[in-house]
Order: sequence, then structure tokens, then C-alpha cells
Amino acid sequence: MGVLPKRSEDYSAWYNELVKHADLAENSAVRGCMVIKPYGYSIWEKMQQALDKMFKDTGHTNAYFPLFVPKSLFEAEEKNAEGFAKECAVVTHYRLKNDPNKPGKLMVDPEAKLEEELVVRPTSEAIIWNTYKNWIQSYRDLPLLINQWANVVRWEMRTRLFLRTAEFLWQEGHTAHATQAEAIAETTQMLDIYAEFAEKFMALPVVKGVKTANERFAGADDTYCIEALMQDGKALQAGTSHFLGQNFAKAFDVKFSDKENKLSHVWGTSWGVSTRLMGALIMAHSDDEGLVLPPILAPIQVVIVPIPKGEESLRAIDAKVDPLVKALKAKGISVKYDNRDTHKPGWKFAEYELKGVPVRIAMGQRDMENGTVEIARRDTKEKTVIAFDDVLAYVENLLVEIQDNIYNKALSYRDEHITKVETFEEFKEVLNGKGGFISAHWDGTTETELKIKEATKATIRCIPLGSVEEAGVCVFSGKPSKQRVLFAQAY
Amino acid sequence: MGVLPKRSEDYSAWYNELVKHADLAENSAVRGCMVIKPYGYSIWEKMQQALDKMFKDTGHTNAYFPLFVPKSLFEAEEKNAEGFAKECAVVTHYRLKNDPNKPGKLMVDPEAKLEEELVVRPTSEAIIWNTYKNWIQSYRDLPLLINQWANVVRWEMRTRLFLRTAEFLWQEGHTAHATQAEAIAETTQMLDIYAEFAEKFMALPVVKGVKTANERFAGADDTYCIEALMQDGKALQAGTSHFLGQNFAKAFDVKFSDKENKLSHVWGTSWGVSTRLMGALIMAHSDDEGLVLPPILAPIQVVIVPIPKGEESLRAIDAKVDPLVKALKAKGISVKYDNRDTHKPGWKFAEYELKGVPVRIAMGQRDMENGTVEIARRDTKEKTVIAFDDVLAYVENLLVEIQDNIYNKALSYRDEHITKVETFEEFKEVLNGKGGFISAHWDGTTETELKIKEATKATIRCIPLGSVEEAGVCVFSGKPSKQRVLFAQAY
Repeated sequence: MGVLPKRSEDYSAWYNELVKHADLAENSAVRGCMVIKPYGYSIWEKMQQALDKMFKDTGHTNAYFPLFVPKSLFEAEEKNAEGFAKECAVVTHYRLKNDPNKPGKLMVDPEAKLEEELVVRPTSEAIIWNTYKNWIQSYRDLPLLINQWANVVRWEMRTRLFLRTAEFLWQEGHTAHATQAEAIAETTQMLDIYAEFAEKFMALPVVKGVKTANERFAGADDTYCIEALMQDGKALQAGTSHFLGQNFAKAFDVKFSDKENKLSHVWGTSWGVSTRLMGALIMAHSDDEGLVLPPILAPIQVVIVPIPKGEESLRAIDAKVDPLVKALKAKGISVKYDNRDTHKPGWKFAEYELKGVPVRIAMGQRDMENGTVEIARRDTKEKTVIAFDDVLAYVENLLVEIQDNIYNKALSYRDEHITKVETFEEFKEVLNGKGGFISAHWDGTTETELKIKEATKATIRCIPLGSVEEAGVCVFSGKPSKQRVLFAQAY
Repeated sequence: MGVLPKRSEDYSAWYNELVKHADLAENSAVRGCMVIKPYGYSIWEKMQQALDKMFKDTGHTNAYFPLFVPKSLFEAEEKNAEGFAKECAVVTHYRLKNDPNKPGKLMVDPEAKLEEELVVRPTSEAIIWNTYKNWIQSYRDLPLLINQWANVVRWEMRTRLFLRTAEFLWQEGHTAHATQAEAIAETTQMLDIYAEFAEKFMALPVVKGVKTANERFAGADDTYCIEALMQDGKALQAGTSHFLGQNFAKAFDVKFSDKENKLSHVWGTSWGVSTRLMGALIMAHSDDEGLVLPPILAPIQVVIVPIPKGEESLRAIDAKVDPLVKALKAKGISVKYDNRDTHKPGWKFAEYELKGVPVRIAMGQRDMENGTVEIARRDTKEKTVIAFDDVLAYVENLLVEIQDNIYNKALSYRDEHITKVETFEEFKEVLNGKGGFISAHWDGTTETELKIKEATKATIRCIPLGSVEEAGVCVFSGKPSKQRVLFAQAY
């Protein structure tokens, strides 16, 4: 169909058009808020299910806290409040009334002004820690391991479907612990879960690391993150896990008595991933023909398209395909048989390519005679003719192979795009050339970090976990450095 | 423990204390908004899963639409707007700033006033139909069968946990059809699904019916509902399904071209159930000792409590119980073995009664010697001693039996509380005496309906579906009536 711009010509337009044409999401009448369309939402549901299971398997339970945060609670943890104040949607009134000057129109009722304004949650630490105060008295109440699936609002000025929207969907875990060590262990455990989810389900290799003080979550002592690389060489922060220290416990006076009846503030964590992951999934794997989905997250894993010669031929193919559809479903494979006569096979091929269906099976009149089918894989576009009787086993293997191949392709690309540089000239050359992550020495100061950002738009994505200390000099300031960090331009 | 007031003495206090002590929900720092606690939320999750499957099995898919509705869209369907205007939370600003007069405090930034105010959705017809306008052009785009799981806000002045809260969770289905008949069929199909869910999962018998014009959803041509009866004789509307006619299609100009290329407005439905169902579930079945949960929705279906004589005895019971726990889990039964030494068996018994765990298995030292266990069922509080080797089969059957028994008990109660009356004296006598539904003739006017409400606080819950026509005279006005309707005081 060629409905999409080419990635090589206009990556940004390619992404926008792909999101639209693959029926994933669209802009709404509300500035910066998106509509997640059914096909896009069904991918998000699969992500949710997988993540939810991983959270529950590690002892977390779900709960639900209010959408609104009274301003006085919101401002209690000052750094957090300062970090989010500029992007808060604020409810000030609780009633509309008929506009006396415009028949049929409504206006805000000035008499229904709230005594205290309500912030639409940009994140829920404040309202949750204010609740935890009543839930935690003793060491027996700890650890408290709670997650919430919710919508949040951050009033962003420049928005982009999935990647940055005023309202988005996410999960936010909020845990409380008796000791610092346990809270740090929770923080890194959840980071590991995010990395595992990205790699096993999204086929997306990530770098695990720690943010610099400048990039840290407002109110955290440490922010851990997973960083992924998109096909245009830009990085994307795919998930964060925060060690909150005792900051929220102190702001909301959350204390517990230990076995010796000694009172202490508890230690906290919070961690989240959002519908932004949809953007990462789309940008990491897709091509100029459309979406490429890892089979595990594909709403339709296999599509079967008949290529009949006339009505009778179609009925014969229908009859032949019916038990195959049932056999695939019995294996837990989601399959769609598209025998609509309103669209031609060629149109269907393009449509399912656009939507990223991993495996396409075509069956024509000659296949019927030969006892074969043609199988096309979305990732490599390779086609193979195989015996009809072998389809089930072949497809089962193929789905695993495609999942692996998509991951390995992204991994190779990522690994080829981590470039060590020693000078700022090299830094700029790589950034403006091949792009990707730049591994460089940095003097550890926010000042240098900001100057590099100003000069290049590159930020420190993270200080990778487990990287070895190495003496060097900062690429920008020339001052001594103990360790390389990863820079990149980012979404 | 006796932590709860008795139902017979103070039903309302009993409900509030039960919700709190069974760890279902609590009030938050935000007026009228609740926190759904982990145990309560896990019941809601089970409800969601069952409903979601029923929706998908009938061809619906999930999507997500914005939280905010611009005022100009909100007011487009005038009846709907008028119906909800008085309970709308309104976002007027998108930024906070430091308060120059109060160090460390924030204030709404007057320079960040929105050009157009945003209503926090009380329901999503407006934003969704404004989107459907772009999704529907041809008969090929119909029917459009979409559901959304979301939070909504209705600024209620008098709130009650689960039953009436400013923010609540719900699902809202929004469908569009080519013909009136198809839309009506969808409306009644979804009503049937709600009734089936209430009866099979919640063990809650319901009356299916149609609302009077006065009780209709604002913007609908007809509102169908399921009405349940609580133990205090009050009715509770548990779900509604609306036939919207072409009202929203006309307000948002949603037209389709049929096979002959003729343009027409589409026909709409919307339908929803909410966390209010939690209130219904709690009030319908529970008793003075706590929650009574139908096994299908119970987060913990079976609890096993050891009653050891010392440490060695406990280890022996642990070893004996371990394979039983595994065998129960293998049958898909959710089971908890509570061998904590921080709490006495009696405390545990009361705790799990409070939380409504359907089956409790106790195992003491003598049981070990005799090869028996004691099984207590939550609904009837009967206890039985059975052979250890029979536990698995016994429990499997018992869970089914409890589910049936809870339903049948509620059904008998409901059926005994539908009382036919012929005069207004009788009407008031029944209402103030045994309570429940009153089946009475009504003259069909809103005037009479409102006068009865004013005099008795009873409303017409519904005109039951499938009820036979019967000539009579209105209990209030004495005017002729063709049919009985169901009155009740309601939540």
C-alpha cells in the first residue's frame, strides 16, 4: 500500500502515520490526550497481563487510590511538589450551571468553588503515603507491597502519541519497608522485572542503570531506569524504579515500631511503566511497511488469507482451513481467518503487514491441489511453501523463532550503537553521525551535564549498573572521571 | 471478635464497619473519594475478569478515551449535559506555582488558565461520540462494539463507600449500529449479561426492567436496569443499559452510508456497571460476623488453620497439609495455609469469618491422630469432621454448594419481599414494615411518581420485563393503570 513515509526520509512522520494507520491510537479533541484504539489497546492489555502476573508473583497486590490530590497533601514532599507543579491539571470547581447569556450553553458555577484545589494526580506518592500513615504502625505491617493501574495527567506542552501525552495509563508500585537495604533490594528487583519484561515480551534489549542527580525523580534518593534504543539512534527511557529513602515517610510522618518497640520512619520505593512502552515497542521493531510485533504481544499471531478461484474454490478452502484454525487455537495461538469477499488478497496482505501480524498463511487453489500452503513471516518477509499437514508444528516453531529474531536484531543494533569516545569532538561526531548511546567519561557534576546537553541535546541516560570503574578524563571538562556513563539524545 | 454492630440494630453502621474491618475500602483525604484496599480490590479484579470475558465473548473490544471532556463537547447533547452539569468536577488551570506569600506552599498559577474548561468525565458519551464521528462512514464500519474500563467522577454531596462515591471505577460500553432494532437488541443483550453475571458470579438475583421516563439516563430513549434487593429491604440498582436512539448521533453528527449509499444517523447504546457492585455484593449476603462471599468471587476460597500442640505438632501438621494445599491449587482453588505463630487459632477463625472466606479447614493434634479435619462453611457456619483423604473432593463440591446456597437464600428473601398491594395504605404499611419491592398499579405519570416519592421516599425501581398487562387502578391517584410496576426505597 505504501501508506507510510520511509523511516530513512522522515522518521518522525513515519512513526506518526504508523500509529494512525495501524489503528493504534489517535489524537483526541482534548489537547495532548490520546484515544487508544481497540487494536492498540489489545496490545496494551497483553502488556498489562504479563506485568501484572510478574508483580503478583513477587508478592505485590493491586489497590486503587483517588485520582485527586488535595493541594496541601501535594505540596507536603517539597521536592516532589516542585518537580511536578508546572504540569498539574487543577480542579477548582465542582459544578456547571446554565449560562444566562448563552441559551443551551453551560458555564462554571462560581458559587461551586472548592475550598481547596485538587490536583489531578501526576503520580500518586502524596495521596498514597498519606494513606500509608494509617496502615503502618508495626513491623508486622511491613513490607507493604502495593501496585496500582491508573491514569495520570502531566500537562506537557509538546505531546506525541504514546511517547508523551497529557494523560497516560500506567502502573505505579508503592512499597514501604522496615530497612534501607530491603527497600533498595525492592527497587532493583522491580528494575530487573522491567528489564525482563522488556526483553522477553517486547523483544527489546535494555540497559539497566542509575540516573544522575539531575535526571532523578523528584523526591527520590536514587532513580534506576531501563533505557532502550530506537531505530533512529535515539534513546527511550522505558521504565523507572525509585528508591525514595525516607523522604515520603518523613513528609507524611509514616513510622513503625520494631520488635523492640523503637519507632522509626519507614523506607520507600516507587516504580512505574506506562503506555509509553507502546511507543517503544512500535519504534524499536517496525519497518516501512508497518508494525512488526513480537509474537508474544501480538493480538493476532497468525492470519490465514484464502486466494480462491471463485465461490466454490472459497468454500473448499474454508472447509480445509476450519480444522487448522481450531488446531491453532487449541495450541493457544491467536488466529484470524479472513475470508471476507469485500477485500482482495493483496489488500489483506498489506493490511496485516501494516498491523504487524507475525505470521501470514496464504492458501490458493493450487495449494489445495498440492496439499500445501504459503507461509510468510512478517519480520524478515521470507516466504516458504510447506505441506499442509506440517503447518501446526511449523507455525508453533516459527512464532518462537520470530520472537527470538526480533530480539536479536534489536540487540545487534543496540550493541553496534554503543560507542566509546574519548574527546568531545568524537562525541559530537558520533552523535550527529551514527547516533545511539555514547559511552564517555564525565566529571560527575551537574554543571558539565547541563553544558553538554545545551551543546548537543544529549543527556546522560544512565550510569550503567555493573560497569567497571575506569580512570579517565571528562570529555567535556577534562577533569578526572572514575567511570563512563551513557549519553544519548532521547525521546 | 464482635467488631461489627448488629444488622438488626444499625444496618447502616454495620455496613460501614464491615467495609472497613474486612479491609475492603476506606475514605480518603479527598472528600467523597475512596481508597479501595488490596482485599477489596482483589474481589473487584475477579468481577472485572468475568465481565470482561463476557463482553469479549459477545464481540466487544476494549479501548481508552480521554479523562477530560472539553465543555463545548460536554454540552452538545443537551439532556445529557443538563443531567450531569450539577455534579461535574472542572479543571480550569494547568499549572501551580510557588506562593510568594507562603514559602514552601503552592498556588494555582492565574496565568495558566485554560481557554476552555475541561470536565472530568462523569460518563463518556460526549467524548466517545465525538470520536465515533471520524470512525464511522459506511455500513462496513458498523456495528462498532467498544467497552472502556475507567474511572469517572460525579460530585455527590452525600457519599458512601462503594455505593456512592465522587470517583468510582466502572466499565462503560458504547456501541453504534445501523438499525434501531439492532441497537435495541444490543441494549437487552447487555442487560442479560449483567443479570447473568449478578446471578452466576455474585449469587445475586435481580429483577430486569425498564426505568420510567423520570428515572431514565439523561440522553437515553430508554434505560434498562437490573435491580437487586438488600437485606434491609432496600433496592439497589446494580447495572444499567441504555438505548440512546439517535440522540448522540445527531448531537455529534455521526452518519453512515448504507449499501445504497443513503446517509443516515447511526443508533447508539451505552451500558455500565461500577464498583457499586461491591456494595451490592457486601450488603446482599453478609452477616453480623462479617463478609459472606460467593466462592467464585472470593480471593481466598479455602483457609487452612493448624491448631498444634507445640512446635513439633505444628511441623507435623505443616508436612501433612503441604500436599493438600498443592492438590487444592492444582484444582484451581485458591487456598491459604495460615500457620503464623503470631496469632491464635481463635483470632484467625474470627478474622477469616470477617473476610468471608467460604471454607475453613482446621487441623489439630487429634485430627492428625484420627486422620481427620474439621471443615466449617462460612455461609451456614456448619462444621463437619471428615476423613483427610476425602478433603479434596469434599471441598470441591462444597464450594459449588455454598455458591448455590448463597444464591438461593438471596432468591428466597427477594421473592418473599415482592409484595402486591392494592391501596396506598397497604403500600405504606408494607414499605414501613417488611420493606422490599412493592408491586403496585401506577397511572403512568411522572406527577404521581414524584408525589409517591415525596410521601414515602419510594421510587419506581422498574417496570419489570415480561410482566403481563393487567387492568387496575393507580394506588395513589386512582386513575386507570395497565400494569404493575415495582416500587422500593433504594440506595
